[in-house]
Amino acid sequence: MTRLPLHPAAPLPSGPDRFVSPGGRPGRPSVWVVGGTGYSGLEAVRLLRTHPAFRLARIFASPGSPERDLAEIDPGLAPGQARALPWSPALLEEGAERPDAALLALPDEASADLAPRLLAHGIRVVDLSSVFRPKSAGAASPPTPGNDQDPVYGLTEWEAARIASARLVANPGCYATACLLALLPLERAGLLDPGEAVVVDGKSGITGAGRRLEADYLFAEANENCRPYSPLAHRHLPEIRAVLGLAAERPLLFVPHVLPVSRGLMTTVYVRLARGVASGEIAAAFDHAYAAAPAVRLLGSGRWPQLRGVTGTGRCDIGWTADPVQRAAVVVSALDNLLKGAAGQAVQNLNLLFGRPREEGIPL
Amino acid sequence: MTRLPLHPAAPLPSGPDRFVSPGGRPGRPSVWVVGGTGYSGLEAVRLLRTHPAFRLARIFASPGSPERDLAEIDPGLAPGQARALPWSPALLEEGAERPDAALLALPDEASADLAPRLLAHGIRVVDLSSVFRPKSAGAASPPTPGNDQDPVYGLTEWEAARIASARLVANPGCYATACLLALLPLERAGLLDPGEAVVVDGKSGITGAGRRLEADYLFAEANENCRPYSPLAHRHLPEIRAVLGLAAERPLLFVPHVLPVSRGLMTTVYVRLARGVASGEIAAAFDHAYAAAPAVRLLGSGRWPQLRGVTGTGRCDIGWTADPVQRAAVVVSALDNLLKGAAGQAVQNLNLLFGRPREEGIPL
Amino acid sequence: MTRLPLHPAAPLPSGPDRFVSPGGRPGRPSVWVVGGTGYSGLEAVRLLRTHPAFRLARIFASPGSPERDLAEIDPGLAPGQARALPWSPALLEEGAERPDAALLALPDEASADLAPRLLAHGIRVVDLSSVFRPKSAGAASPPTPGNDQDPVYGLTEWEAARIASARLVANPGCYATACLLALLPLERAGLLDPGEAVVVDGKSGITGAGRRLEADYLFAEANENCRPYSPLAHRHLPEIRAVLGLAAERPLLFVPHVLPVSRGLMTTVYVRLARGVASGEIAAAFDHAYAAAPAVRLLGSGRWPQLRGVTGTGRCDIGWTADPVQRAAVVVSALDNLLKGAAGQAVQNLNLLFGRPREEGIPL
Amino acid sequence: MTRLPLHPAAPLPSGPDRFVSPGGRPGRPSVWVVGGTGYSGLEAVRLLRTHPAFRLARIFASPGSPERDLAEIDPGLAPGQARALPWSPALLEEGAERPDAALLALPDEASADLAPRLLAHGIRVVDLSSVFRPKSAGAASPPTPGNDQDPVYGLTEWEAARIASARLVANPGCYATACLLALLPLERAGLLDPGEAVVVDGKSGITGAGRRLEADYLFAEANENCRPYSPLAHRHLPEIRAVLGLAAERPLLFVPHVLPVSRGLMTTVYVRLARGVASGEIAAAFDHAYAAAPAVRLLGSGRWPQLRGVTGTGRCDIGWTADPVQRAAVVVSALDNLLKGAAGQAVQNLNLLFGRPREEGIPL
Repeated sequence: MTRLPLHPAAPLPSGPDRFVSPGGRPGRPSVWVVGGTGYSGLEAVRLLRTHPAFRLARIFASPGSPERDLAEIDPGLAPGQARALPWSPALLEEGAERPDAALLALPDEASADLAPRLLAHGIRVVDLSSVFRPKSAGAASPPTPGNDQDPVYGLTEWEAARIASARLVANPGCYATACLLALLPLERAGLLDPGEAVVVDGKSGITGAGRRLEADYLFAEANENCRPYSPLAHRHLPEIRAVLGLAAERPLLFVPHVLPVSRGLMTTVYVRLARGVASGEIAAAFDHAYAAAPAVRLLGSGRWPQLRGVTGTGRCDIGWTADPVQRAAVVVSALDNLLKGAAGQAVQNLNLLFGRPREEGIPL
Repeated sequence: MTRLPLHPAAPLPSGPDRFVSPGGRPGRPSVWVVGGTGYSGLEAVRLLRTHPAFRLARIFASPGSPERDLAEIDPGLAPGQARALPWSPALLEEGAERPDAALLALPDEASADLAPRLLAHGIRVVDLSSVFRPKSAGAASPPTPGNDQDPVYGLTEWEAARIASARLVANPGCYATACLLALLPLERAGLLDPGEAVVVDGKSGITGAGRRLEADYLFAEANENCRPYSPLAHRHLPEIRAVLGLAAERPLLFVPHVLPVSRGLMTTVYVRLARGVASGEIAAAFDHAYAAAPAVRLLGSGRWPQLRGVTGTGRCDIGWTADPVQRAAVVVSALDNLLKGAAGQAVQNLNLLFGRPREEGIPL
Repeated sequence: MTRLPLHPAAPLPSGPDRFVSPGGRPGRPSVWVVGGTGYSGLEAVRLLRTHPAFRLARIFASPGSPERDLAEIDPGLAPGQARALPWSPALLEEGAERPDAALLALPDEASADLAPRLLAHGIRVVDLSSVFRPKSAGAASPPTPGNDQDPVYGLTEWEAARIASARLVANPGCYATACLLALLPLERAGLLDPGEAVVVDGKSGITGAGRRLEADYLFAEANENCRPYSPLAHRHLPEIRAVLGLAAERPLLFVPHVLPVSRGLMTTVYVRLARGVASGEIAAAFDHAYAAAPAVRLLGSGRWPQLRGVTGTGRCDIGWTADPVQRAAVVVSALDNLLKGAAGQAVQNLNLLFGRPREEGIPL
Repeated sequence: MTRLPLHPAAPLPSGPDRFVSPGGRPGRPSVWVVGGTGYSGLEAVRLLRTHPAFRLARIFASPGSPERDLAEIDPGLAPGQARALPWSPALLEEGAERPDAALLALPDEASADLAPRLLAHGIRVVDLSSVFRPKSAGAASPPTPGNDQDPVYGLTEWEAARIASARLVANPGCYATACLLALLPLERAGLLDPGEAVVVDGKSGITGAGRRLEADYLFAEANENCRPYSPLAHRHLPEIRAVLGLAAERPLLFVPHVLPVSRGLMTTVYVRLARGVASGEIAAAFDHAYAAAPAVRLLGSGRWPQLRGVTGTGRCDIGWTADPVQRAAVVVSALDNLLKGAAGQAVQNLNLLFGRPREEGIPL
């Protein structure tokens, strides 16, 4: 297992205010979005169309999918306003107008295939699939497209320095983001009892599952409902374990649930504290981690996030309480699964890659 | 702390098929509902209006509240079809037509005042408030209206024998019901590690909070939202601790959340298993507890309840999974907070009080 | 155009209390449901499983579809509790146990094929497709399986006598039911200005469109949304025109809308009144039509239906108001599209076919 | 009846790029929001906090209401980030720092009282109440604070020139805006049959009714529901009649309905066309009216608005179809009731008052 050397709120490298692209063209870095017809890809398109520092050069459908007018998917777009073009390998050939960066919102296999080819042409990649994310011990290592191109885990608030000089950023999963932002400050500060289980109860809106035509996601099935899925076996679990650096014998119990809301995700984290931890140490750990992080809002002890406070924003809200008698604490984190949980964090990382202010172009 | 002597699925006392009321009148037992204008009281009215064995003699508003046509509250009722009458102490005076039983859906104070007076007139009481429920050590004892009238805790599937001969039944809270039905079989069978915390993550619909005119319950505030409340401090916690019989030093961490659904409640329970517990022992414990309990449906290992499966029914659905590597199990229970979590269980208990089949008149 | 001779609230034929089936077997009439995996078919299964007078003999999937456990579709069912069997023509062969009636919840083509074959074996049919419903002038006539087997339009409250002696009942569409129940009393009583347009604005829940795996019916697309569809061109329009007996030149403008609710349907009908119509004549017309119809609830003038008042019931609620200055009236009708709009009305018609009380087994 | 001289898409007066306020202070015009704790006022606060051309100087609660932290109402705000101060008449006294404009989101009586006093101090007013809007013949005239200060009706796309030089703008109601934007182009172009009724069926989200603590607005009452209210008698009707300039004998039938969505409003308008109107004339009339109006999006014939396409935007979407056989047309318009239906249009009008680009600061 590769334990990531994470740095809380590392100082940002000072970047050039005006980007000069590899080919020498001055002006705004150009970006492609590949996979722009899913919920996350569409959200990235929305952010990049109005981003002051980037030029959204082209939008592509997933490789193998036909051209599509995004107005068919997003009724807020006018017909012809934005099209997802068919992907073609010829786009990368010599002489073609290649972008400075690409944001991939694709299934794992498509990302595993496409990312190395983009990197080989000097295009920086922010990838939203799980294929380049850290795995826990025993799992297969992520593919490494080259010695100097190891993927960097894109948990913005904890990896800013490494992201800024990365070629390939593996954007975290939505649940991993909410869970790690809640747990890392306490774990890194040594406040958790290393002999006790960590319990994470997750709740997310329907879009967390992607835009899939399955009966479970029909209105009449999902409405007025709540159901757990993949209890103790969610696909984000290895990623969370690896980044937290949990010892193999330490239980991490995670059950996500689907709520009848379109957007939004919440994790309720139950932990036991190490002996002698004072309540103020929790607040201090959170302050230390996020004092300089505008996309994480600390509500403080006894004040609680709610989905309505974060949907439509690129922010993660965090609240907590401690119970000294039970030597326990609860941390609740909430974010918009399509923004801080996907496209918003991807744009934070794009900003870092090109020396822009970290939250530029993101609604906070 | 009074640890309740709970008996799983005790055999039901055989009751008379035709009830003879104390005063010698033959016929169906008559029942009053007091507090019929809240969500739970209204649900009890719905059940009792069509119950084959009881006669819903009268419906009253909460003491101090004015008369009200229930059609104003329930658009499914026609005007004049059902009225909540104003309560008056004169109703209990000599010569008045007193009922065989009363179902109270009142605030704690109103129940504490009214129940003893009803009992003094020989009227059996099923009370939905928290005032007569068990409290954990250190908390004030519940009022005991008389030596022979100690309240019996109305968790139907675990207290059937004692309920059948009770005068006063303290109906459990909705969260307590879901949580205890999930935990009691494992705890009583000795399958839980006594040194480890029990974590209960609760989710419930809006009606779980009662019919209160507060901003948090407005559609535009609750819709597309999810928020925790009373983390680690919910008012059902002492009740759950007491009935489970948890040692004082054993952590029980409970955080309920409000979901944007009208009805339904789910608890996701995370436990550590005692060493050497085999997966089959969990199934066996559940089967032992609920084999003869039609209102508890065991979905089995790896099959999960969802709210849509229980809303509108008087049933509790339970599913679970165990992870031997982490020595952990997750149990998920779901019920309709107004039925099995309130009025449905109250009618189960009324059935027991009068020797009727336990689930008579309850949609399963 | 075949103008139906409709009779308001015709007296019911007195039927035998105990049915004797054609083959001489005494006992409850047996019924098949064919197409039990869609929303309407599943609702028919729910009603017939607990119906006191019928025996739900078998449930079939649509012809050509594989066997299916209904628990996969309805989480309220236990696995194995109800299965939709594969349909086979051999089921109708000599010697097979044929039912007394079949309820078809199938696509038009499947019903057009199957219904005549069932009728040929003496099985009475209630068909929920549109294929046997009346069409307006110019449209193709419905298939007539035989001289004595012309389909009878199954608008229960207006065709009771003809339904009672029918072999094949064409159950009305959900919008047609709500719209006709609101308009027929006024039109038949001559209260409407024959020179003025009739406007019908429809709103229905998602299940009105059937259980289709289309993007528009995904939770994240339908939630927090409302959209019109097929404006001025809905497929129920010819049925409504034909049954109302509207002159060809009389405008009937109908726009249905999809609401973010699972169940329920409302039509808001705007009409101009004939000169000299007094307000009381509207009430009288409704009273005349529905005084003996328990499944139609007249709320009266100035009192308005809402979806919550009818979902889960087999009832249609109707309210209205008139404006003498504008010589106009508005009638609002609401029903549960799966009950009075589909399976509930189908069971009303089954009751009529077998001489049972018209609303037996239907939640009102 | 004062028939308003409306001008479609009048050319905007060229304004100064940098505003000089009456007192000579250079810089951005300062604005107060009075009534910032309701849904519309809060939305105005959101728009003005980030508006590039205005300075949101102060936020006040409704006169008579106490100070309030807006974070209690909007969970997206941090505590202390925005406060609604208590209103005091002393704020208008000599020497106080008075704003250039005030946006009032108040009950009618409070606006009727406050607006004249603000105007007397040279403060321009955009008022969201109904008190200064046009009334139809027979209704009381709106109060006129002074000869040169007649209120101008703030239907931005039709009154731009008059708004630009107004002192007091009466912002239209949300239903009036949707209905008039759909009807005015056809009526002004003479395409409607003057002898036929106009039918408007309205649907709106819960926030359309304001932030009122009434049982009808509780989640459990509004969820899975739809109900009409004030049929044929909505308080916006006189406003719509007056602005359309409908003859007294021309029927205008309007029934609004409450939908279970937080935001969004749709009107479905049914009209009869004058003889000989060609389908292309409808498109031409809409194009003529809105070609230069970025906040009105014409979807065209046979393409339909949906709420999801407009919520969160300051835009009104319009689609239509015509049926030459029935000489009829349907127009559907949709908008966000809190933006184009309230605060968004108010900010459009503020932009006009101060010579700013009409849609500056408004999400489109």
